[in-house]
Amino acid sequence: MRLSKMHLRTLREVPNEAEIPSHILLLRTGMIRKLVSGVYGFMPLGWRSVRKIEEIIREEMDRAGGQEIHMSAVQPAELWQESGRWFAYGPELWRLKDRNGRDFCLGPTHEEIFTDIIRSDVSSYRQLPVNLYQIQTKYRDEARPRFGLMRSREFIMKDAYSFDRDQEGLDKSYQEMYDTYERIFTRCGLTFRPVEADTGAIGGSNSHEFTALSEVGESEIAYCEACDMAATVERAACVDAPATEEAELPREEVHTPGTKTIEEVADFLGIPQTKTMKALLFVTYDEEGKENGYVAAFVRGDRELNMTKLVNALGIPEHSIEFADEEKMGAATGCVGGFTGPVGLHDCTIVADSELPGLKNLCAGACKVDYHMKNVNYGRDYKADIVTDIKTLKEGDPCPVCGAPVKHARGIEVGQVFKLGTKYSESMGAIYKDENQKDQLIVMGCYGIGVTRTLAAIVEQHHDENGIIWPVSVAPYHAIITVMKPEDEVQAQTAERIYKELMDAGVEVLLDDRKERPGVKFKDADLLGIPVRLTVGRGAPEGKIEYKLRRDAEKEELSVDEGIARAIRLINSEK
Amino acid sequence: MRLSKMHLRTLREVPNEAEIPSHILLLRTGMIRKLVSGVYGFMPLGWRSVRKIEEIIREEMDRAGGQEIHMSAVQPAELWQESGRWFAYGPELWRLKDRNGRDFCLGPTHEEIFTDIIRSDVSSYRQLPVNLYQIQTKYRDEARPRFGLMRSREFIMKDAYSFDRDQEGLDKSYQEMYDTYERIFTRCGLTFRPVEADTGAIGGSNSHEFTALSEVGESEIAYCEACDMAATVERAACVDAPATEEAELPREEVHTPGTKTIEEVADFLGIPQTKTMKALLFVTYDEEGKENGYVAAFVRGDRELNMTKLVNALGIPEHSIEFADEEKMGAATGCVGGFTGPVGLHDCTIVADSELPGLKNLCAGACKVDYHMKNVNYGRDYKADIVTDIKTLKEGDPCPVCGAPVKHARGIEVGQVFKLGTKYSESMGAIYKDENQKDQLIVMGCYGIGVTRTLAAIVEQHHDENGIIWPVSVAPYHAIITVMKPEDEVQAQTAERIYKELMDAGVEVLLDDRKERPGVKFKDADLLGIPVRLTVGRGAPEGKIEYKLRRDAEKEELSVDEGIARAIRLINSEK
Repeated sequence: MRLSKMHLRTLREVPNEAEIPSHILLLRTGMIRKLVSGVYGFMPLGWRSVRKIEEIIREEMDRAGGQEIHMSAVQPAELWQESGRWFAYGPELWRLKDRNGRDFCLGPTHEEIFTDIIRSDVSSYRQLPVNLYQIQTKYRDEARPRFGLMRSREFIMKDAYSFDRDQEGLDKSYQEMYDTYERIFTRCGLTFRPVEADTGAIGGSNSHEFTALSEVGESEIAYCEACDMAATVERAACVDAPATEEAELPREEVHTPGTKTIEEVADFLGIPQTKTMKALLFVTYDEEGKENGYVAAFVRGDRELNMTKLVNALGIPEHSIEFADEEKMGAATGCVGGFTGPVGLHDCTIVADSELPGLKNLCAGACKVDYHMKNVNYGRDYKADIVTDIKTLKEGDPCPVCGAPVKHARGIEVGQVFKLGTKYSESMGAIYKDENQKDQLIVMGCYGIGVTRTLAAIVEQHHDENGIIWPVSVAPYHAIITVMKPEDEVQAQTAERIYKELMDAGVEVLLDDRKERPGVKFKDADLLGIPVRLTVGRGAPEGKIEYKLRRDAEKEELSVDEGIARAIRLINSEK
Repeated sequence: MRLSKMHLRTLREVPNEAEIPSHILLLRTGMIRKLVSGVYGFMPLGWRSVRKIEEIIREEMDRAGGQEIHMSAVQPAELWQESGRWFAYGPELWRLKDRNGRDFCLGPTHEEIFTDIIRSDVSSYRQLPVNLYQIQTKYRDEARPRFGLMRSREFIMKDAYSFDRDQEGLDKSYQEMYDTYERIFTRCGLTFRPVEADTGAIGGSNSHEFTALSEVGESEIAYCEACDMAATVERAACVDAPATEEAELPREEVHTPGTKTIEEVADFLGIPQTKTMKALLFVTYDEEGKENGYVAAFVRGDRELNMTKLVNALGIPEHSIEFADEEKMGAATGCVGGFTGPVGLHDCTIVADSELPGLKNLCAGACKVDYHMKNVNYGRDYKADIVTDIKTLKEGDPCPVCGAPVKHARGIEVGQVFKLGTKYSESMGAIYKDENQKDQLIVMGCYGIGVTRTLAAIVEQHHDENGIIWPVSVAPYHAIITVMKPEDEVQAQTAERIYKELMDAGVEVLLDDRKERPGVKFKDADLLGIPVRLTVGRGAPEGKIEYKLRRDAEKEELSVDEGIARAIRLINSEK
């Protein structure tokens, strides 16, 4: 492609809202453009890279026995009501009505649709296993779309669904997809880590998130260098503090004026925070959005509550719980903002972190303004409706597998795989007959890749201060020929010859034949991040050109033939 | 692909609502499946054919200098308000709100978005011309979705937009796209006809529709065998009847009890229908859906009103006009159901067909129950607000170009090209600076292909009573190897060898290794319409196979090598 003919508009300045490198660079290179908050379009270069990622995914999915199909983005509400997710998915499900007032949504994911296909198509064990996938546009009506392609409202996703006879079959399908994902992200040039993850609104038992490591990622992961534990912080299990070997002391109310935080009360009483417990107060909502109860969650004073673990413990969707209005909740349950403890609380669900029963003589709020209670003990002084791990694994905490101190890192969730089990086949009645003509539930897995988010993740990991540095496999073009003086006949002819020879060899090549100063062309070539640059300049009469890789600082002067050969060799080995 | 591993479910019976061959066959072959009224998904074989059509389009668009991009399906209302189409497009525009109550639509077309791109990207004449296209999912909230992929609510379209400096540039771009469309539809194996068409909700001056000829098509076209006139019936101009050389007779009221139709009144009075005129009564609506006026349209008694011409004459969208309630309209305008004529009508817009002023002494309604008026003459007795061609060209009418009797045919609109001119650049301010630094409006064209509808059109033209007969270029697979007895070792080995050799030669091949009776396999191969069938049966020990093309009745016994060679030759020459 001749740059003089390409619709390309690079930007010097991008809107302030673009804060992270991938968002800034994809806008600056003109590869994407914003249509409205959280909705982006792809311009010629950007779309080429998206299609390359799609092709890599397609090849690897096909290799693993996946069969590509294509379902609609518009989905009828009925299927979502059947699975129970019309409510459970919450406000991120982008809902709409047709002209007859019938309810639809724009699919954020397709479990219902694919389950519906399989329940009507499959009747016998002979038809299993099967793995169907699609590469398709998805929707999520985000409250706060941000970071460009990272968190957008319309995006491209590859979603695959496996259907097996039993758990063993699912385990195999899951592992196959896990391995496929490793190949896909490796081919995309990403540095990534598969980590254990929560199953969230998708559901199921097990899940791994494929996280491209990046400072700007929204995913926080905990990992251990001593063993191979790695999990999202939402998901990571915590080791309970050992039970205290202490006699239970008599409960005692103490006056603690103005000490609303754990830090204040610990300081005031001269006790460590680990000898305190803190309360977090919530209200929950039903399907109509009406308040339907209160929740008080307790963790040791120095811990942080893990919301994901809490909603999982309660068995409710994340969007159906909010921090409570303390006064209103106080009137109903006896809690007192800043001074809530488990003793004296009533008419609410009490959830205690799993380590609390083992800890003796803790200091808790007295449910009375300016008072705390010392020596509060589980069993004797209070009981919880649910006792389970609801705390967050912090950096330095012991690894739940080996006990070594864990580390934290940030990353971008580019893919996630789920063992759904029978969640959907049960609610939607997807069954098959086994060898004995007995009905069995189909066992499902599902597997997603954020295609457009992967594009952004690649840019996050491959850029410098001058622009993008595309891996060859996903570069919009492999090579760029920069002609210093297109009006110079020898330079023009040399460039044309290289252009033709590279194209004949299957190289995707840009010819920068624009009437621009060389400085502008070099800057654009760097910004666009084309892997190989061949510069045709003063050396042309002697048959010399300059060969430079975007990722390296060095340039080399080579003969035209050697430059062409080197480019082809490199590109073929990496594409 | 081995059929035993493919997720394939062919149907013996399809729902009654499937009335036309393409709908029936695409469902029976399991290539598409209905998700909800007017919304279909594509299963593995169907999706392969869609992707082949897409690839043909992509290759030809790229060859014509088009640059592929990809914009969102969700579009902000603001852009549509700017162009005026938020109202003009009517109820087929599928509207929705986001969680903040902001208005959006699911794009049925992308003129606004592409104009928005160009007005921000292009500033100088040097950046023109440019042609951008996308292959993308579109939406139309049809009142009556039907015929499967023919008229659906979610569908795949290729839409392209050209941007030129002036009309001459547009003419060139338009011709280039016209030629490209001819290549695309030819490669898809369609018999089609480009015909002049109305511009409808898209707008602009000129348009051609590419019509795949088919009895079941919703497009009616008029064409002339004596010259090359061809147009949709909506669009086709009509020749006015020659003016009558007759003296104007005195107007006369006649009692015509119960003669509400033209036929009745002509019979009753013993005059030809061509000596009568008929009225059609309408009410129009404003943007809020409130009634804002009445329209009476008059054509000669034997003519049919052409609604498209009428709304074009009125300059209003098609969805803003409806047949009037005659009683209500009568109270306001003096019209009388069945007896309305132009004399005595008031407070409504009168539109007269262009031939009426030349016709003398016509019989019209008298605006009085059971009365008509004879010898009504334009000018003397009535005047119209608009006089223009609003009649329908019927089969046998004189060709507007050469006068020979025209013929009618039906077809499927698979593509349409439009000269938009400056419609959008004016309303949305898309300008560039010319060589003299003067602002000029960008001149636009737009070009659509219904990708999924093209798939259906291909099936309409390529099927028989046993199933689909795919052209090689869009067949989901090129060849199928039918193994009579897969458990026979010689047959199995022979089939495997053919399978491998064909795949090595780049042939897309299905191996029917299912444990089914040969009859079932043959029936399925015919139903699926795979172009080449190689049958491995009793001849296998002698190295013989059966070679059969789906489109031909004959079978041939060939050596394995000759069968393979013939298949490869045929497929390479047609793919």
